[in-house]
Amino acid sequence: MTARIIDGKLIASELRARVAAEVVRVKRENGLTPGLAVVLVGSDPASQVYVRSKHKQTQEAGMASFEHVLPADVAQDDLLALIAKLNRDPAVHGILVQLPLPKSLHTETIINAIDPAKDVDGLHPSNAGRLAGGFAALSPCTPLGCIILTKSVHASLAGLNAIVIGRSNLVGRPLVQLLLNENATVTIAHSRSRDLPKLCARADLVYAAVGKPEMVRGDWIKPGATVIDVGINRLPALEGKTRLVGDVAFAEALAVAGAITPVPGGVGQMTVACLLVNTLRAACAIHGLPAPAV
Amino acid sequence: MTARIIDGKLIASELRARVAAEVVRVKRENGLTPGLAVVLVGSDPASQVYVRSKHKQTQEAGMASFEHVLPADVAQDDLLALIAKLNRDPAVHGILVQLPLPKSLHTETIINAIDPAKDVDGLHPSNAGRLAGGFAALSPCTPLGCIILTKSVHASLAGLNAIVIGRSNLVGRPLVQLLLNENATVTIAHSRSRDLPKLCARADLVYAAVGKPEMVRGDWIKPGATVIDVGINRLPALEGKTRLVGDVAFAEALAVAGAITPVPGGVGQMTVACLLVNTLRAACAIHGLPAPAV
Repeated sequence: MTARIIDGKLIASELRARVAAEVVRVKRENGLTPGLAVVLVGSDPASQVYVRSKHKQTQEAGMASFEHVLPADVAQDDLLALIAKLNRDPAVHGILVQLPLPKSLHTETIINAIDPAKDVDGLHPSNAGRLAGGFAALSPCTPLGCIILTKSVHASLAGLNAIVIGRSNLVGRPLVQLLLNENATVTIAHSRSRDLPKLCARADLVYAAVGKPEMVRGDWIKPGATVIDVGINRLPALEGKTRLVGDVAFAEALAVAGAITPVPGGVGQMTVACLLVNTLRAACAIHGLPAPAV
Repeated sequence: MTARIIDGKLIASELRARVAAEVVRVKRENGLTPGLAVVLVGSDPASQVYVRSKHKQTQEAGMASFEHVLPADVAQDDLLALIAKLNRDPAVHGILVQLPLPKSLHTETIINAIDPAKDVDGLHPSNAGRLAGGFAALSPCTPLGCIILTKSVHASLAGLNAIVIGRSNLVGRPLVQLLLNENATVTIAHSRSRDLPKLCARADLVYAAVGKPEMVRGDWIKPGATVIDVGINRLPALEGKTRLVGDVAFAEALAVAGAITPVPGGVGQMTVACLLVNTLRAACAIHGLPAPAV
C-alpha cells in the first residue's frame, strides 16, 4: 500500500478561499473589515520573509493588514506602548508579534501585554488556559492546521487513538487540547518516553513535532495510520545545497501509512492560513457576531 | 499479590506537618505569616463542612485564616468588591471561593477576578495557562495530591506510562500537565475512548477521575501498577445507610495492583493539605522568597 499524500498546499488555499468568502460576507452584512497587525522587531531575514508572506495573504483575503517594523534596539516600553495602542485600535482585531524577539526584550512580558481577544497567535496564558480548560479560545496556528489536515482524512476523530510526539508550548501541548476537544484519546510522548516505537505503533493518528530529522521510522507506524509531520529540518544536500526534511522518514512511512503529510507542502502551508482564520474569528467575537463558518 | 494500600490520611498529615514547619521558618526568618481567605456564599451544608475543615487545618498549620460568609442572594458586584479587597490585602496570600456558587452568580467572572498570584485553587485561566505552558503555576489541589501520593510509591515518574481517565477542568486536564512535568508519558482517556480496558492495561500509573462508581475493574489493571482513585461516589447501603466508593472496583484491583489508594482515606485526604501547600507557596512567591521545601 502507498499512503495518500495530504496536500497541504491545496487544503491551505481552499481554507484561504473560505476565509475570503466570509470576509466578503461580514463586510457586506456587518460593515466589518477584519484587520491584522503584525509587529516585527529587528531585521532577521527569515522573520522578514514570514512577515511579508503574512502581509500578502492577509490582503489577498480581503482583510486590512498593518505592518509595524521597529529597530532591534527598541526599548521594551516603546514596544509595550505600541501594543497598548493596537489593543485600543478598533480597526485591529488580531495582533501578532513576530518571534523570536531580540534578547533585550522579555518575550513573556510582551506576549502577556496583548489583549487576549486579539491574540491571534494563541500564546497569551489566558488563551492557553481557556484552551486547556476546554473553553472557546484562540488556539496557536500550527496545531490548528494539524487538526484541519487530519479532518481532510477523517470526518470525525472521536475515539481514535492519537499520539503527539513532542510537548512544546507552541505545538505539542496545545495540539493535545485540540485533539481532546475532537474526542480523540490522546497520548503525549517526549524525549523521556520509553519504547516510543511501540507507543507509536498503537496510534491511528501520529503527530511528530520534535524537530529531529526523520526520527519516526516506517516500522513505528500502524498500517493505515494518518501521519502528520510538523517537523521542518534543513539538512545539507549535494553541491553545497540544503534540503528540507520532516520528523518522519517519509519514504518509509509512505509505504505503511494510510495518509501522510509531505515536508515541505504539508503542515507548513497551513500556519498562515490558520492565522487568517484566527483573525476572522477574533473580529467576529469582538463584534459579538457568531463564529464564522470556515 | 495484594497491593500496598497508599495511606492518604498519613501522607496528608505528614504533608501538613512539613507545611507547619515551613510556616514556623518563614515567620522566624522573614516575619511572614501566610494567610488564607475563604469565601463562602450561602449555606450549603456540604460547603460549610469543607470550609470549617479548611479553617481548622489552616490555623493548625500556623497560618492566618480569614472566613467570609455572604448570603446566597449577594449581588455579584458585592462579591467582586470583596475579592478586590482581598486582592489588595497584604495579610492575604491565598483566596479561595468555595464552589459551587449560587446560580445567580457567574462562576467564571468570579474566578477571573481573583489575583492569579493568590489563586490557591489554581482555577484562574492564567494559572491553567501557565500550567499548560509548562511554567511555574499554582495548580489545582486534587491533581497535586494525586502526584504526591504517586511519589510515595515511585521516587521518579520519568518514562512511566500513565493513563488519566476523565478530562475535567478540575482534575483530569491539570493532572495531565503535572504528569508531563514529571516526565511521564501520558494518555488521557474519556467517555469517547475505545477499548478503555486495553488502554488501561498498558499503564504503569492509573488515575481514575470519572465519577462512575467502580467503573475500573480489576482485569483492566496491569499487574503491579499504581492505582490512584479520585472518585468519591455515595451509594445506598444496608439499613438506609450510604457508603462511599471510588471509580475503581477496589477489592478486584487490590488483588492485581502494586499500590492503590482507598476511598475514603486516599486522594480526598490530600486536597486540603495541598491547599495549605499552595497558600504557603503563594505567600513565598508574593514576597520574592524561594519556593518552600514541602
